[in-house]
Amino acid sequence: MTDAPSSDGFAWLPFVDRLADAASAAILPHFRSAMAVENKEALAFDPVTVADKGAEEAIRGLIGADYPEHGILGEEYGDQSGDAEHVWVIDPIDGTRAFISGLPVWGTLIGLKRHGVPVFGMMAQPFTGERFSGDGKSAYYTGPGGERPLKTRKCAAIGDATLFTTTPALFKGADRAAYDRVERAARLPRYGCDCYAYCMLAAGQIDLVVETELKTFDIMPLIPVIEGAGGVVTNWDGGSAIEGGRIVAAGDPRLHAAVLEMLAG
Amino acid sequence: MTDAPSSDGFAWLPFVDRLADAASAAILPHFRSAMAVENKEALAFDPVTVADKGAEEAIRGLIGADYPEHGILGEEYGDQSGDAEHVWVIDPIDGTRAFISGLPVWGTLIGLKRHGVPVFGMMAQPFTGERFSGDGKSAYYTGPGGERPLKTRKCAAIGDATLFTTTPALFKGADRAAYDRVERAARLPRYGCDCYAYCMLAAGQIDLVVETELKTFDIMPLIPVIEGAGGVVTNWDGGSAIEGGRIVAAGDPRLHAAVLEMLAG
Repeated sequence: MTDAPSSDGFAWLPFVDRLADAASAAILPHFRSAMAVENKEALAFDPVTVADKGAEEAIRGLIGADYPEHGILGEEYGDQSGDAEHVWVIDPIDGTRAFISGLPVWGTLIGLKRHGVPVFGMMAQPFTGERFSGDGKSAYYTGPGGERPLKTRKCAAIGDATLFTTTPALFKGADRAAYDRVERAARLPRYGCDCYAYCMLAAGQIDLVVETELKTFDIMPLIPVIEGAGGVVTNWDGGSAIEGGRIVAAGDPRLHAAVLEMLAG
Repeated sequence: MTDAPSSDGFAWLPFVDRLADAASAAILPHFRSAMAVENKEALAFDPVTVADKGAEEAIRGLIGADYPEHGILGEEYGDQSGDAEHVWVIDPIDGTRAFISGLPVWGTLIGLKRHGVPVFGMMAQPFTGERFSGDGKSAYYTGPGGERPLKTRKCAAIGDATLFTTTPALFKGADRAAYDRVERAARLPRYGCDCYAYCMLAAGQIDLVVETELKTFDIMPLIPVIEGAGGVVTNWDGGSAIEGGRIVAAGDPRLHAAVLEMLAG
């Protein structure tokens, strides 16, 4: 058992890098596995499920060995949190549609809460070697091109905004009408991106992400990255994004406020 | 001046690799340039335009030096083909929306026609280091994970197919109704991918791409890759895809035939 870092935030980076390394080793052999298999008829398993479970088992093993008192909430193996002070929130493959389509825009999400508050988060993309990390106060990129701080860009007006969502088809009823108001007003809408979109928002490449039906695994690990880069992420009512649901993230706080009003009608 | 390879096809690979290297050097400094610039207000230029033009100039320079008798048709600098036996078809950045959003699913497209027939094509993604090449008889991937032949997968029925398109909003009138018939019948639709989708089709990761309003630069360089991997690509009327327009590509010839019928109504 290792002593937990006495401060939260980036003191956790070396350990979280180890978790991401273990996830990568479990997942990468299954990414584009069809390309590597001569007789595709022989693919009797579901590569994304095998990779997902293997990565979560590897992460749970490392946390259990070093921090057995910590709780773990994972997409594949459920909740082992109890009333732990520290709780890890894990989605081994966020973006399974991208994964099965061979696109390198899925990611491994690893987040840490202390007393219920997000204190560190990472998105790791092992095929490209990119990692986006944050602690709510600052955020960093490592990968091709080196290491850089992540900073959102200024964009106060929806008419100037690049907007991402998974697909408009996920919004139902009044939520679809609300989403459509935002999309119609945006400069450039684009679909299908999952965790990668929030990281591009943190990097100052895009301005806005609007989604629905997110689980806590899909968003909690990204909150410290988005906020650390200067962005704002809440649910559509302006409350905490930690538990998921209907989410709006913006790089510029002025845009976030404006979009909350548009979504409310 | 270098002698042209006496045979077409993969004899052109070393020269096309040089063209792709030159394009990469011109483009990569501008990809995610906002991340690298401290004061983003200082970004007075349009990074995608600068990168696009720089890459096409570099490619034209290399072709002009080694093969001055060849024609060149490029997205940025137009047609210098005349009645040349060999004509290069170039799109330095296919997928400009992905490029400006920071997503590594754009690519440099380089194709070669001889007497009007595609004889070689490449999609190069410099951020990930991936290259997809083909000559209509075979196709290969090089990049992370090594070198592999590209082979489409079997998928005879639209109900089993993963479908990609840029966005349904591009289809107008009767074309939109025709596209919607195909999307409703597909197992998994996904939006927003440009050249990368055709390469994932060649790699056996997805089954179908349906698009409209393509230019010859957007599709000609991909034809030898798709066909070399065992796929079929035509326009919606079943004719040649070389000139672009409304395009349908399928990994399995049976699926291609079925979708042509669905599109015709």
